[in-house]
Amino acid sequence: MKIIMDERGKKYFLNEDKEFHSDLGIIDEEQMSKANIGDTLTTHLEHDFKVIKPNINDFIDLMDRRCSILVQKDIGSVLAHTGLGSSSKVVDAGTGAGAIALNFANVVGSEGMVYSYEIREDFSIIANKNIETFGLKNIIIKNKDIKEGIDEENIDLIFLDLPKPYEIFEDVYESLNFGGWLAVYAPYIDQAELAYKVAKKLNFQNIDIIETFERGLEVRPQGTRPKTRMVGHTGYLVFARKL
Amino acid sequence: MKIIMDERGKKYFLNEDKEFHSDLGIIDEEQMSKANIGDTLTTHLEHDFKVIKPNINDFIDLMDRRCSILVQKDIGSVLAHTGLGSSSKVVDAGTGAGAIALNFANVVGSEGMVYSYEIREDFSIIANKNIETFGLKNIIIKNKDIKEGIDEENIDLIFLDLPKPYEIFEDVYESLNFGGWLAVYAPYIDQAELAYKVAKKLNFQNIDIIETFERGLEVRPQGTRPKTRMVGHTGYLVFARKL
Amino acid sequence: MKIIMDERGKKYFLNEDKEFHSDLGIIDEEQMSKANIGDTLTTHLEHDFKVIKPNINDFIDLMDRRCSILVQKDIGSVLAHTGLGSSSKVVDAGTGAGAIALNFANVVGSEGMVYSYEIREDFSIIANKNIETFGLKNIIIKNKDIKEGIDEENIDLIFLDLPKPYEIFEDVYESLNFGGWLAVYAPYIDQAELAYKVAKKLNFQNIDIIETFERGLEVRPQGTRPKTRMVGHTGYLVFARKL
Amino acid sequence: MKIIMDERGKKYFLNEDKEFHSDLGIIDEEQMSKANIGDTLTTHLEHDFKVIKPNINDFIDLMDRRCSILVQKDIGSVLAHTGLGSSSKVVDAGTGAGAIALNFANVVGSEGMVYSYEIREDFSIIANKNIETFGLKNIIIKNKDIKEGIDEENIDLIFLDLPKPYEIFEDVYESLNFGGWLAVYAPYIDQAELAYKVAKKLNFQNIDIIETFERGLEVRPQGTRPKTRMVGHTGYLVFARKL
Repeated sequence: MKIIMDERGKKYFLNEDKEFHSDLGIIDEEQMSKANIGDTLTTHLEHDFKVIKPNINDFIDLMDRRCSILVQKDIGSVLAHTGLGSSSKVVDAGTGAGAIALNFANVVGSEGMVYSYEIREDFSIIANKNIETFGLKNIIIKNKDIKEGIDEENIDLIFLDLPKPYEIFEDVYESLNFGGWLAVYAPYIDQAELAYKVAKKLNFQNIDIIETFERGLEVRPQGTRPKTRMVGHTGYLVFARKL
Repeated sequence: MKIIMDERGKKYFLNEDKEFHSDLGIIDEEQMSKANIGDTLTTHLEHDFKVIKPNINDFIDLMDRRCSILVQKDIGSVLAHTGLGSSSKVVDAGTGAGAIALNFANVVGSEGMVYSYEIREDFSIIANKNIETFGLKNIIIKNKDIKEGIDEENIDLIFLDLPKPYEIFEDVYESLNFGGWLAVYAPYIDQAELAYKVAKKLNFQNIDIIETFERGLEVRPQGTRPKTRMVGHTGYLVFARKL
Repeated sequence: MKIIMDERGKKYFLNEDKEFHSDLGIIDEEQMSKANIGDTLTTHLEHDFKVIKPNINDFIDLMDRRCSILVQKDIGSVLAHTGLGSSSKVVDAGTGAGAIALNFANVVGSEGMVYSYEIREDFSIIANKNIETFGLKNIIIKNKDIKEGIDEENIDLIFLDLPKPYEIFEDVYESLNFGGWLAVYAPYIDQAELAYKVAKKLNFQNIDIIETFERGLEVRPQGTRPKTRMVGHTGYLVFARKL
Repeated sequence: MKIIMDERGKKYFLNEDKEFHSDLGIIDEEQMSKANIGDTLTTHLEHDFKVIKPNINDFIDLMDRRCSILVQKDIGSVLAHTGLGSSSKVVDAGTGAGAIALNFANVVGSEGMVYSYEIREDFSIIANKNIETFGLKNIIIKNKDIKEGIDEENIDLIFLDLPKPYEIFEDVYESLNFGGWLAVYAPYIDQAELAYKVAKKLNFQNIDIIETFERGLEVRPQGTRPKTRMVGHTGYLVFARKL
């Protein structure tokens, strides 16, 4: 998959088989079909578009999203804390538009696999379409309530973004590898607290609740200073390990 | 690679060819050689050791480390912000004991590659030993000053943890893919500011300086509260993209 | 001075000599003239207004403000860090609409005094009017450039909210008591850094640069969680003491 | 009251009637009795001590403290948020060694008054001794359980640092002025949450739970950077106003 970006930084999927139309003009099919990373394509109105190698974030920015998605600071925490890597096996629920599943699939690669549970049919259809567009073969969307059971075994990471995640921690424990991680995203303190307590009772180890903050620094002619705008809270992350 | 963990949570590499000795007793070679993930091994003093599937963090905890390593919140930021994934190509400098190179290699997998530059010979020897122990084939440690030039091309991520990273941003630009990211770890404000300015001058796009904070929440019988201890600062991360 | 508040929480100055008009109706002069703290006044449209004892924050909310004012977290830091109290003598610059001078005057009381320097005549007129309205006798607004000299001596706190505060630190040192504090509000890192260095050179003691963050916790039917909205940065506070 | 400070920054109360002894030598009674702010006194071993004007923080640092005291960031929040000032009337509980009562008394001045409730006799004795030493006439320590009733009326601020502060919110409401503030210090989330809910039920207005963070910036020869050490949590502050 490739992406083209106009002079304003706006990005579009590159469809090699079709003429491209935008408010900055038309790029003909020939240019589109031969486009390589780094090339500059030109519209009939003399506007330039660059061909860039997209990463997972570009794709998620462009894809069909109908529900809120995890912010990067939280995705980063999950990846770093659980040591997710190539060839890992992941279960997540709920899928939503598939963003977090795509993030995981991007990391576990062709030797790994992501099983993503989504109770709503409409979301699972959107997610499936998104995955197909990105061309990933290592995600399976399951239109199914994860509370009815987790079908997979020897999983390295189970990630839950559900209202009452702790209701299925027994199943989670069964499905994890020795050494595997449970990670829960919990906007409310109460959820995080209950997740902690249930995980403890079920003998999970290395249980931690964390929250992360991210602040930008801005460099201006008058001087450098932290940014005024900052997000105060997204959610807590609860981590627990089967050991 | 496997790891065994004693009843206190202490971890050890599992060497399948050898009797295991510890203060909790001896595990015989036969048990060691047949150990599978999830098994319990027993010492002659009746102490139990569990066989667990290690992840990259377990390995980095156990490996030979002679220099400070990036904390998880910062590794997570780099992974999430740059969208690093399977089959990506990464350059990093300086290697140190190899921790960050191992983190990257864990994510890019067998179809990706990490080229890690380290000016000090002693560090590059330690790093090579660590990589060999973990059994990764996708890292090349280069005992070379990255300021003399970056040999690789079409790189997806160049990560620099150097005192004056901005001195090589022209080379970095040349070596990156269109769409590739530069990421700099900078403990001091001045470094981050200069990195920002030089990146801007060289026409990098999407330049951002961020810092992240991580705080734990503790669940105790008396109640739940944020943890008193918190790290105030590690370093800034400067991101810039070739577009 | 008294304040009345309508059913929506909107506040107004209470003028005892006049009929009160608002979109919720009219309160006659007799009610206005006899109003005591805690009374309820009623308009001809049957709307209730409560008479409340205003504090300095109510007043600053209602007064004529033409320029940005320090937020409470920063005012609190200055008050707590310098131990400002009854009968202290304070110098501040620049006055602006007088908000910080009012805050200081509120604390130092009738036995203390605040000398507030403002280079712009228009601001000093607004500030004087505000002080008169609030009825404080312990503030003197000086329409004068503080860079031409500080007239006062034996001062307990000198607070500077100026672009280049460090240019007058020698004068500040002369005007302070032994034990007196210099406090500087600096939005930019560079300002704070230079203030620190100049203060150090001039032999100020207990020099510190701090920043504070404030985050709310929200209690909702679905649960309790930190607020999403949070201010990332206002300014640094540089403290230095003459010892 | 005056304070003397040695060359190492260590502070001592100045007792004008007595020879002063320390490990840096003796200062004779004559020097002590004539000491003015800014003077330098000299020991028989030729060490210098400076006479400084103490503020409330100096005093609290030197006084007899047997229990933990509020940190400056939290005291500052209470002062700024409630607009406490000269001539205000304050109630606080529990007194402890009297630190917060001293802070309030320092601000409300000779025209204001602080009533401080402490259930433990030993603490109330220490607090009384501390107040006497500092020479404040505007604090009354009451060795009494505040849960048995608040004797005072028309109070501007009631500050509670108790395990279950919400148990007395009805009484608090009765004792406050219209416009007066309740402020609660709560280390645990649960305490803050319950305080919020009870205050809401009792028709308090402007109810807010906040927490503050403070981080230092350090200026070193190698560069400027935020400090590594930072306190993650002290307590939440719950504010509610009678309106």
